[in-house]
Amino acid sequence: MTRPEPTYQLLLDSVEKQLRYGQLRVGDRLPGERSLAETYGISRASVREALRVLSAVGLIRSRSGSGPASGAVVVSEPSDALSWALRMHISTRQLPVADIVETRLLLEGTAAAQAAQTVARLTAQGTEAGNSQGPSQQEVAQKLEQARTYLDQMDQPQLADSDFHLCDTRFHSQISTLAGNMVLDTVIDSLHLATVSYVQEAVPFLADWQQAKQTLQDQHRAIYRAVAQGRPEQAQQAVQEHIRWFYALSHTK
Amino acid sequence: MTRPEPTYQLLLDSVEKQLRYGQLRVGDRLPGERSLAETYGISRASVREALRVLSAVGLIRSRSGSGPASGAVVVSEPSDALSWALRMHISTRQLPVADIVETRLLLEGTAAAQAAQTVARLTAQGTEAGNSQGPSQQEVAQKLEQARTYLDQMDQPQLADSDFHLCDTRFHSQISTLAGNMVLDTVIDSLHLATVSYVQEAVPFLADWQQAKQTLQDQHRAIYRAVAQGRPEQAQQAVQEHIRWFYALSHTK
Repeated sequence: MTRPEPTYQLLLDSVEKQLRYGQLRVGDRLPGERSLAETYGISRASVREALRVLSAVGLIRSRSGSGPASGAVVVSEPSDALSWALRMHISTRQLPVADIVETRLLLEGTAAAQAAQTVARLTAQGTEAGNSQGPSQQEVAQKLEQARTYLDQMDQPQLADSDFHLCDTRFHSQISTLAGNMVLDTVIDSLHLATVSYVQEAVPFLADWQQAKQTLQDQHRAIYRAVAQGRPEQAQQAVQEHIRWFYALSHTK
Repeated sequence: MTRPEPTYQLLLDSVEKQLRYGQLRVGDRLPGERSLAETYGISRASVREALRVLSAVGLIRSRSGSGPASGAVVVSEPSDALSWALRMHISTRQLPVADIVETRLLLEGTAAAQAAQTVARLTAQGTEAGNSQGPSQQEVAQKLEQARTYLDQMDQPQLADSDFHLCDTRFHSQISTLAGNMVLDTVIDSLHLATVSYVQEAVPFLADWQQAKQTLQDQHRAIYRAVAQGRPEQAQQAVQEHIRWFYALSHTK
């Protein structure tokens, strides 16, 4: 708190203020490096440091190949950025993997239950559309359809392991977005992505990865069914069983 | 994913690998900027960009006043860093405050219940010490004592508002660490810190801040009592009531 503020902090604080008061929005382009340096009276090196930090937390994206004169675009992609930061802290051994598992059980269990509630609520409303809060029947149908597509892809025997893990992450992400809480989503995605590399590393050591994939897929379909049929308790249980089994697998190589 | 890797990424990836394989640990000092630039064959500007990113996510701390020859120290302080990143994303309006509230209700409610369970378990064990998992009776007593000290400070009528908010954050943090899950803690602290500035901004608009402070303190003491007496359900309810009331207050200015 008492450390002197580095000069690049000026730019970070200004970006935050502009975002907050709506003077800068997602999709807007920041001025180029030279222009920012002049505006804030700081060096171009400091400007670049601030931009790297904004990029690392998922707030701007630079166009590749574009020179420093054309500015970066404001985005809001917190999950990748937060998961990278969490993964780094897990690497320091200050955040135990067991605590990640416990937290995932709580968050993903809750999200799966809420996703099933969303489906149940829409089913109960039947065709009386129009006055409901939350996602529409069409949106829910699309997300479920997309989740099933990922499962089908994971069934392909020739799918590369890295693509299997990617579809796996996306399947879980589709399910948790049905809960309709973007902050919960962001934290879940971050924790999932933060630990996926540990799972990937464990795969070569597994006695029977083909068999393990089959079990994972059975669990995924149980989660899918419980959510699609609007059964919150079963959805929560299915997700928690899946997470527990997954971690036990990758820690008994 | 297909964007070209900027040169500073080399250093970030290497730091992650070294942390992961225990070649670099919390408390270690990184080499100086010049030395890092030579080792990785990148410019000193790129080294500095990587260091800014590591600092922004709470993984290194530079000693103020020290020259670029003496390296930064490896730390693991995720909460401040993640909360800053979350706050930035809230500023973009892509993460709704209502979702933060829902997520806090879930996480802090669970943490308070688990904190009360920790106390209840230790009380049940009585003086049979030695074989229990989790924090010891002495550790728990210290944390509770510390939490009470923060409450007493908040009772001082001459306390500055900024210090009131600081003690408030620390009180909640002490309670949630009793749950014994560092990842849950980190996420809770990040969400709390990410929204505290919104609460601070609301204060000048409140009709009666003195009265509000009194209500907040009554709620804090109810949380404290439920945890200290080992009553999980009451602890969870007390925290959730507190969070709901707090947000309703800061959104009806």
